[in-house]
Amino acid sequence: MKRPRLFTPGPTAVPESVLLEMAQPMMHHRTDEFIAIASEVFQDLKYVFQTENDVFILAASGTGAMEAAVVNLLSPGDRVIAISAGKFGERWVSLAKTYGAEVTVLKVEWGRRFDTSLLEEALIKAPETRAVLATLCETSTGTHFDVEKMGQIVARHPQTVLVVDAISSLGAVPCQTDRWQLDVVVTGSQKALMLPPGLSFISMSSKAWKLAENSKLPKYYFDLKKYRQVLAKSDFPFTMAVSLVVGLRRSLQLIKEVTLEKIWQEHHRRAEATRRAVAAMGLRLFSEAPSDAVTAVVLPEKVDGEKLCRLLRTRYGISVAGGQDHLKGKVVRISHLGWQDEFDALTAISSLGIALSLSGHPVNTAQGIEEAIRVLFSSED
Amino acid sequence: MKRPRLFTPGPTAVPESVLLEMAQPMMHHRTDEFIAIASEVFQDLKYVFQTENDVFILAASGTGAMEAAVVNLLSPGDRVIAISAGKFGERWVSLAKTYGAEVTVLKVEWGRRFDTSLLEEALIKAPETRAVLATLCETSTGTHFDVEKMGQIVARHPQTVLVVDAISSLGAVPCQTDRWQLDVVVTGSQKALMLPPGLSFISMSSKAWKLAENSKLPKYYFDLKKYRQVLAKSDFPFTMAVSLVVGLRRSLQLIKEVTLEKIWQEHHRRAEATRRAVAAMGLRLFSEAPSDAVTAVVLPEKVDGEKLCRLLRTRYGISVAGGQDHLKGKVVRISHLGWQDEFDALTAISSLGIALSLSGHPVNTAQGIEEAIRVLFSSED
Repeated sequence: MKRPRLFTPGPTAVPESVLLEMAQPMMHHRTDEFIAIASEVFQDLKYVFQTENDVFILAASGTGAMEAAVVNLLSPGDRVIAISAGKFGERWVSLAKTYGAEVTVLKVEWGRRFDTSLLEEALIKAPETRAVLATLCETSTGTHFDVEKMGQIVARHPQTVLVVDAISSLGAVPCQTDRWQLDVVVTGSQKALMLPPGLSFISMSSKAWKLAENSKLPKYYFDLKKYRQVLAKSDFPFTMAVSLVVGLRRSLQLIKEVTLEKIWQEHHRRAEATRRAVAAMGLRLFSEAPSDAVTAVVLPEKVDGEKLCRLLRTRYGISVAGGQDHLKGKVVRISHLGWQDEFDALTAISSLGIALSLSGHPVNTAQGIEEAIRVLFSSED
Repeated sequence: MKRPRLFTPGPTAVPESVLLEMAQPMMHHRTDEFIAIASEVFQDLKYVFQTENDVFILAASGTGAMEAAVVNLLSPGDRVIAISAGKFGERWVSLAKTYGAEVTVLKVEWGRRFDTSLLEEALIKAPETRAVLATLCETSTGTHFDVEKMGQIVARHPQTVLVVDAISSLGAVPCQTDRWQLDVVVTGSQKALMLPPGLSFISMSSKAWKLAENSKLPKYYFDLKKYRQVLAKSDFPFTMAVSLVVGLRRSLQLIKEVTLEKIWQEHHRRAEATRRAVAAMGLRLFSEAPSDAVTAVVLPEKVDGEKLCRLLRTRYGISVAGGQDHLKGKVVRISHLGWQDEFDALTAISSLGIALSLSGHPVNTAQGIEEAIRVLFSSED
């Protein structure tokens, strides 16, 4: 009997209590019962986003929420700056271009740290910039970006908003929406929020709303201005994905019970353990600024990463992610997201070691595990 | 112990086997396992749509699929004809206007039959029309529209496509996409497909693709041209709502087992039984061309429909829909959609009779039930 295990950076494992919640008989969405659930969820999302602003729920994947940001903020011809350091940074670029924005791309080599002074300069050069499109964790490379620093920079420009794709990391690593002055934050359900894919979320600051007032891009399904009018009554402009919202209530309850601070610590610990283990096994990280959400490990040259992933999946039921685009076959990505504990981290690490050995590249798995245990169980708090 | 029952025109009841399927542990969406499921689902959707064309699955509500139709077919300034005979016809109008189309509205009084010769005339007057936006069942009024006839009319115009909102009716009433020459058909998951809300679907004929080739409206999340490239591999352009697709496989299996023809018959029988019962109870239908998907019943003047719905819900756990917009409080709408049988129809009818009596407007419920039984159990086949 194989037990399937997800170490992919989304979808992630969904707790049984959430699965069972969603398996309840269907309910209608225009009832007091569902409105009460929605109202609780809208409230708890503010906690997870660390914001006093409204957080909108969309029945769409994360890309839908990214599109919502673009079409609600911009008008054709608007200048934006996009920080592109991987597949999802590139998505910002192509989304903004699709909608007619003039995009200045601050291109960062995949896996490299972003020097925020470049953003500072770019904004001084182009003060008419409407939006800066950034990423908290670039999932394709496992790289963390200092959106707190970006928030400070953008805050000095009253005409510019900071838009953060936090899809693979909100709820896993600190994302202090209000304190860090992040005007728009976007995330998805199937990552740290421990839900199936199908929902995405977007928060809007008052500065973002000012921009939205003048936005001339056409929008309908993703029109947040219209949505805002019904959100006050905990309602939705279109039929919401009822069962996912019912599950979301449960997963947000779980997060509140543990507290965000503790969850961030635990993600950090699992990620740090994985990084130390990787080093102890003689492997290296792809990213020079690794995120606590997902760890990208560079594979030895002779190892085919695609084969390795398939081996893990078919032989052990373990899913890790391979590389995307030019990283295909060259890295594996192990996520620390959501419903995982210390022993899951040990499982992920040991499975990587075992699979490498089976692929003809033996590594010292035991030493990796030893290092990981040291980090994971060092001080019980 | 109250047993909740949904007679709303979406969300509808979800069979237990589908609920349990969706409660399975989460799986990753880029695996052979999920691709096999997706491939089965894409195939079975063609059966339900009665088409040889590709049917696209969107992680979005039905309105998202309507938007996909508009943004993939049209360019700003394109002329379209929209048949507007209720809340969802109006949605076509506002969607098309939002995206800069020149909209000729063929306005039909709510509940009235649409005279298709008006469409014929309108097309002759404006042969440059790009698309006709129609509805198979106008959910707000329970009215059926003869999209088969519209298909014949539009087929005579090589530059024009017929777009059908079949959200509340595909799978419940005949919708012969190919035979009737319906170029674009849109539906949602939470109606006759017996799933929770969160997915929508859109089919595209080759005539529609020709139009799509020249469409100049910006699109990203709903870009079907890009989607088409990955659909051939049973893949999705963005993270799909995995659990809903897993449930969809099961619900499509259920539909195939029974066969569409039998399911249409059963919907017709439940709808006809309800219509006869309504007449026998001295009430009248709102629509002069009632759909087999949903029956709108005009309430006696002194009865407050909103209160009646609330009474049914709180006292008996029964959900029927009230009226929308200017019909608020004046009608109730009973859906025959999806996972229902003859006894559910009797329950819906008797609950309406009982609630009317409780609201101070006694009706002959027994006579209604007698009429309904005659229709429902007349000839067992």
